[in-house]
Amino acid sequence: MKILNETIGKIERIDYSLAKKTQQRLDNLTKPQGSLGRLEELAKQVVEITKNENPPVKNKVIFTMAGDHGVVKEGVSAFPAEVTAQMVYNFLRSGAGINVLAEHTGARVVVVDMGVAEELNPQPELIIKKVDYGTKNMLNGPAMTKDQAITSVETGIEIFEAELQKGIDIAGTGEMGIGNTTASSAIAAVITGKAVEDVTGRGTGIDDKALAHKIEIIKRVIEINKPDPKDAIDVLHKIGGFEIGGLVGVILAAASKRVPVVIDGFISGAAGLIAYQLEPKVKDYMIAAHCSVEQGHKIILDYIGLKPLLNLDLRLGEGTGAALAMNIVEAAIKILTEMATFQSASVFKRIDN
Amino acid sequence: MKILNETIGKIERIDYSLAKKTQQRLDNLTKPQGSLGRLEELAKQVVEITKNENPPVKNKVIFTMAGDHGVVKEGVSAFPAEVTAQMVYNFLRSGAGINVLAEHTGARVVVVDMGVAEELNPQPELIIKKVDYGTKNMLNGPAMTKDQAITSVETGIEIFEAELQKGIDIAGTGEMGIGNTTASSAIAAVITGKAVEDVTGRGTGIDDKALAHKIEIIKRVIEINKPDPKDAIDVLHKIGGFEIGGLVGVILAAASKRVPVVIDGFISGAAGLIAYQLEPKVKDYMIAAHCSVEQGHKIILDYIGLKPLLNLDLRLGEGTGAALAMNIVEAAIKILTEMATFQSASVFKRIDN
Repeated sequence: MKILNETIGKIERIDYSLAKKTQQRLDNLTKPQGSLGRLEELAKQVVEITKNENPPVKNKVIFTMAGDHGVVKEGVSAFPAEVTAQMVYNFLRSGAGINVLAEHTGARVVVVDMGVAEELNPQPELIIKKVDYGTKNMLNGPAMTKDQAITSVETGIEIFEAELQKGIDIAGTGEMGIGNTTASSAIAAVITGKAVEDVTGRGTGIDDKALAHKIEIIKRVIEINKPDPKDAIDVLHKIGGFEIGGLVGVILAAASKRVPVVIDGFISGAAGLIAYQLEPKVKDYMIAAHCSVEQGHKIILDYIGLKPLLNLDLRLGEGTGAALAMNIVEAAIKILTEMATFQSASVFKRIDN
Repeated sequence: MKILNETIGKIERIDYSLAKKTQQRLDNLTKPQGSLGRLEELAKQVVEITKNENPPVKNKVIFTMAGDHGVVKEGVSAFPAEVTAQMVYNFLRSGAGINVLAEHTGARVVVVDMGVAEELNPQPELIIKKVDYGTKNMLNGPAMTKDQAITSVETGIEIFEAELQKGIDIAGTGEMGIGNTTASSAIAAVITGKAVEDVTGRGTGIDDKALAHKIEIIKRVIEINKPDPKDAIDVLHKIGGFEIGGLVGVILAAASKRVPVVIDGFISGAAGLIAYQLEPKVKDYMIAAHCSVEQGHKIILDYIGLKPLLNLDLRLGEGTGAALAMNIVEAAIKILTEMATFQSASVFKRIDN
């Protein structure tokens, strides 16, 4: 608990002391004021986060964390649990969606085993920090112990800090875990107070019957475990996942180090929600990559108060949306730092200025 | 008229003969079916357009065409007309938003003087194809002659075809022209049949009073010129612009050569609308980059039936949104061509498959 509390303690409120200056600078670039919309907002946000008027965006790192879910035994997913481990190997061989999109955007992918059910073959590019061999079936009691919940978050913090030594200008979150939309829907329902039906979607692609079953399972999981919405660690402990806990740690650590963190889809959003409950100040360090097809995602984003950058009907996870969104963030910073000013380009300003 | 008619005649209907095969291929990649949403749709569209199952996306070219508008004399813009020429020089010195974003996405910018009011200094990177020194003030009669309207479109076709010799895998449109939202709103109102108020926005940033004045001017322009909504060349001739005509040519030429063309914002959308009226088959070759803050843009996109990729509150033009969107299109193609299959990665498919 010490690492977690210390990290939270280091998260500073963003004071927006550079906002006016940055806006003036943007307004002096050769374009109508405000005409680059959200790119301008992003540039300002990254300047405020980093306290750097010319923030670098070279070192982009996506943390893709994997974990298994005992609740998969209840038939909540279209894919078998073995796929979690298989996809981790796929990440390591660069065959997955996240590899292609991270390469496209120039990001490094950090692959972490936070709690995959099977023993994975050690290899240089795989960080093995297994908290346990998958969570317990949360239909029969807590998904993990309270200690494991804290360990998963603190492990995420430690992984972020270790990678920070190699350089991180902007971080992204991603995950893999068959069954983790079930955990994320349960987390979203408990913390936001919305009905389970409103925050539960088809995950990897279940049919109507399986969706009704998934909703029923989530309701029973919440009823049996009674997680305390005010205690985010209690929520993680009872109905969370190890990869979700790891991402909570990544998000908190990024904020504590003033590094912007791009939140991927629904599961990353659930991690963001827990991080936000632990320390609302993290909100300003988060950039919502996109709005997922999973209906609970929008509810999470609205609850935190984040506006997604992209709406591309994605529902893959892994960090794929974060990779695409990082590209937009990089574009925003380049606008701020590389465009000519009215003066340098000898362009007239507005008639009324 | 010969070049225009021949180009239109070469535009083929997309037959979607590769759609099923491409979808099967996408469904065999290591991700849940359909989970990359619009990226999958884009990949299929580009395969169908190019009839290439592994379409290259290396040579990206944005056509940024400039022209002046006589109607600026009526006080419809926040910037003076001189800014058109000044911004062309800014493009050539790589200081503008489009330069930064094109460089970011790896696209080449082709800068064209289609009808800037002043004589521009010749230089290697500037294509001077001035149809005239700005359009006439369309409040007093047609913006250009009918011959000039045809010439502007045919010039766009010729420029596209010349650049195609150097290689274009994907094209984008962009423009610069103080006063060109006024022309675009007039075009949108006439062709879509919507009220002038519904398709007119603040352009580079005029206030409420100036907006009311702009709406009034556009209404009078339409009343005086009576463009025929069924005759797109008549619309271009009476209430268009030279850069808009040039972009109509680029769009038609791209479609005739089976090259996907990313349509930028509102003014590019007005060019797309004219191209679509001339030959509705162009629709399937167009990719709408984003939805502009200019309210007429959504009306244009809905009329044609295009769904924008990005919603970033942009309203700069120049091709900036097209540059950002090209990056998404490139990502989509990489997903299709670079991801591992379930078989190659030894990942289990769905339980029910």
